[in-house]
Amino acid sequence: MIDMVSIIEKKKTGHALSEEEIRGFVKGVTDGSIPDYQTSALLMAICFQGMTRQETFTLTDAMLHSGQTMDLSEIKGIKVDKHSTGGVGDKTTLIVAPIAAACGVPIAKMSGRGLGFTGGTIDKLESIPGFRVQLSPEEFLNTVETAGMSVVGQTQDVAPADKKLYALRDVTATVNNISLISSSIMSKKLASGSDAIVLDVKCGQGSFNKTQKAAEDLGRLMVDIGTDAGKKVVAVITDMDQPLGNAVGNSLEVMEAIDTLKGKGPADMTELALTLSGYMIYCGQKADSPEEGRRKAEEALGSGRALDVFRKFVTMQGGDASCADDFGIFKQPLHKAELKAAESGYIAGIQADSIGLASQHLGAGRRTKEDSIDLSAGILLKKKVGDPIESGETLAILYSDSEEKLANGLKEAGSAYTYAAEAPKRPVLIKEIIE
Amino acid sequence: MIDMVSIIEKKKTGHALSEEEIRGFVKGVTDGSIPDYQTSALLMAICFQGMTRQETFTLTDAMLHSGQTMDLSEIKGIKVDKHSTGGVGDKTTLIVAPIAAACGVPIAKMSGRGLGFTGGTIDKLESIPGFRVQLSPEEFLNTVETAGMSVVGQTQDVAPADKKLYALRDVTATVNNISLISSSIMSKKLASGSDAIVLDVKCGQGSFNKTQKAAEDLGRLMVDIGTDAGKKVVAVITDMDQPLGNAVGNSLEVMEAIDTLKGKGPADMTELALTLSGYMIYCGQKADSPEEGRRKAEEALGSGRALDVFRKFVTMQGGDASCADDFGIFKQPLHKAELKAAESGYIAGIQADSIGLASQHLGAGRRTKEDSIDLSAGILLKKKVGDPIESGETLAILYSDSEEKLANGLKEAGSAYTYAAEAPKRPVLIKEIIE
Repeated sequence: MIDMVSIIEKKKTGHALSEEEIRGFVKGVTDGSIPDYQTSALLMAICFQGMTRQETFTLTDAMLHSGQTMDLSEIKGIKVDKHSTGGVGDKTTLIVAPIAAACGVPIAKMSGRGLGFTGGTIDKLESIPGFRVQLSPEEFLNTVETAGMSVVGQTQDVAPADKKLYALRDVTATVNNISLISSSIMSKKLASGSDAIVLDVKCGQGSFNKTQKAAEDLGRLMVDIGTDAGKKVVAVITDMDQPLGNAVGNSLEVMEAIDTLKGKGPADMTELALTLSGYMIYCGQKADSPEEGRRKAEEALGSGRALDVFRKFVTMQGGDASCADDFGIFKQPLHKAELKAAESGYIAGIQADSIGLASQHLGAGRRTKEDSIDLSAGILLKKKVGDPIESGETLAILYSDSEEKLANGLKEAGSAYTYAAEAPKRPVLIKEIIE
Repeated sequence: MIDMVSIIEKKKTGHALSEEEIRGFVKGVTDGSIPDYQTSALLMAICFQGMTRQETFTLTDAMLHSGQTMDLSEIKGIKVDKHSTGGVGDKTTLIVAPIAAACGVPIAKMSGRGLGFTGGTIDKLESIPGFRVQLSPEEFLNTVETAGMSVVGQTQDVAPADKKLYALRDVTATVNNISLISSSIMSKKLASGSDAIVLDVKCGQGSFNKTQKAAEDLGRLMVDIGTDAGKKVVAVITDMDQPLGNAVGNSLEVMEAIDTLKGKGPADMTELALTLSGYMIYCGQKADSPEEGRRKAEEALGSGRALDVFRKFVTMQGGDASCADDFGIFKQPLHKAELKAAESGYIAGIQADSIGLASQHLGAGRRTKEDSIDLSAGILLKKKVGDPIESGETLAILYSDSEEKLANGLKEAGSAYTYAAEAPKRPVLIKEIIE
């Protein structure tokens, strides 16, 4: 039995905790023997004093072993996972997974639901009629083997220590620490059993990483943890000042992903998807360099092979793959409204978090885990940062089942825009690659 | 309802909390609506970011009003309280209260029990056969009016918020913060209803204030809080590197207090008692200066008037006042043993905390609040720092009801001593006075 008061005191006074202390702590959190008030005091001390790379790796490893770990050894080849730190309009998984799978990289992915203004892949997939996010282990492995990819909901038993710690961090203002964030992400990723991981680390106003430096530090630490765990990890630092692509909301994002798989997606979405899937193909050893990976990704997109994988995987998980050809099969929202520009000139900024919040107001996002969501609600952006605009021109179209929600969404979305008289510099999408 | 996550975040990022936030926090702690894990996260953030004088005063004031406050207005004159931050061999209250009362200063004191290696006045008084520490409010006021003084146990209802916070601080390594310590002490003192308070702030190895600077900072802050509350407060910074006086243990300390009241006490004990009671007489406006207060204290001691007050107060609280003349009426310990010097030369140091811990091992102290204690157990020091010593000479006599405890106590007490070949400087007892 560990002495929590000594451990808290040790961290409070700036010392590194031993492996035994960290593992004892995680064990006590998992089995409930450590009271929450001691855990939260330690978490706060960690926020002030930080953790070394060694401590962070041990915390990650202890959390990943606190529950079930996936065994993907039955699947042949190098399994590559992909994770985004979360953003607005981020439907990237729905595009990069089919591309990488079409290039021979098996994708066996567990994904989460959305919370706050950040969407979740699982919610998006559920907007496809019939799609099932809960598969038996056999179905999951079979889908990966046959379709080349599968995406399922995270099982309750993956990294339960992280689940408990995250819930406590959320209510004690101890979320924002690089070691706590990276161990939380990496414990779940490492427990998911893939051989390599490509991380999309967002930065900017719509991310918890407000600066590029913060995102790079987080990316570097997660790559280091992966290295310590014997896994190939690449972190791609990308922009989240404005929303990604044009669509925000669950079925809207699936439609945009399908468009992108058809080669008709927005430029930023397509660019990010090709970069990330290029690295996935490279990490999966189906290309000798990220550049060759990107070329293969372009081919999979252009030839329609990636879209074929998408259809096959949707079908095998019970979904209606005709959605790829007929967006009419998605549930249609009852109401829509246009957001008009207040000024003329150029779009200087579209605050991602305000758009995310507006989408939540429309019914597309959850305030608390228990909220139900409207899969057809959301926002379609008609202009992005750098575009010229005339006063009264349409900035975006908002969709909702409720006129009241529509009014709230319009108000919030309107606050997202800033204007400039001169053409502003277009934001750089891919900021840095860390491997 | 206050938003605890915002309050924790605000303090974590180094901002001062508003009066409304602090009062809301204390209210939520008192009524149990704030979960302990949020409280402990805030306490840890306070340990790192500190509190301003204004915040500390508000916290003190909110805690003092979280429960019952004593109304001493029925007692004529300026009531003066005295408090020690705790030490080993600290029987000062038993001496200064009778002296000040003999000089016309009414003393209506609530006191606590000992915990860890620190003794408590209430335990000491209970070693006098028949002595009652729980009096009705009427008995308490009547004893003060008639005998000039009364000392009773703290009621459960004084500053309940402090009680809850202290219990939580104790198990989350958040005890050691100047604002939390001073507000804890001052909320109870201010709730006790006296008009002025003389604080004995210990410093050195046997105190939580390891340095004189830490003790001075704490003393200054408590004087400031008193000023903000409209009370006269004086802080006397005194040595707790070695135990105070020669006796450590409950009945042993009462006997030494009686000896001191007879003018036969150890030099350091007598000096401290005269200084503190001089300030109490001055604060009680029975002397125009602390120096005049001290002269009056010397007179009360020399004339035997202070001892008379002691007898009267013991009698009125049900105790056998013949203890003042016959130490045989105290319960006698079953076993004793002598601790012998390991070296020749001079005593360079007697670690107060090791002597306190040895006394606890002998049965005189509690490990947890639920432990029962042996009132006759303890240690009589035969040598103090600076005294010459021959190897094999007696350093101290240890008393206990158990031979096993005696062996443990001897081992611990032996570790307290350091020796020097040359005569060391005698420690300065009174280091600073802050008012």
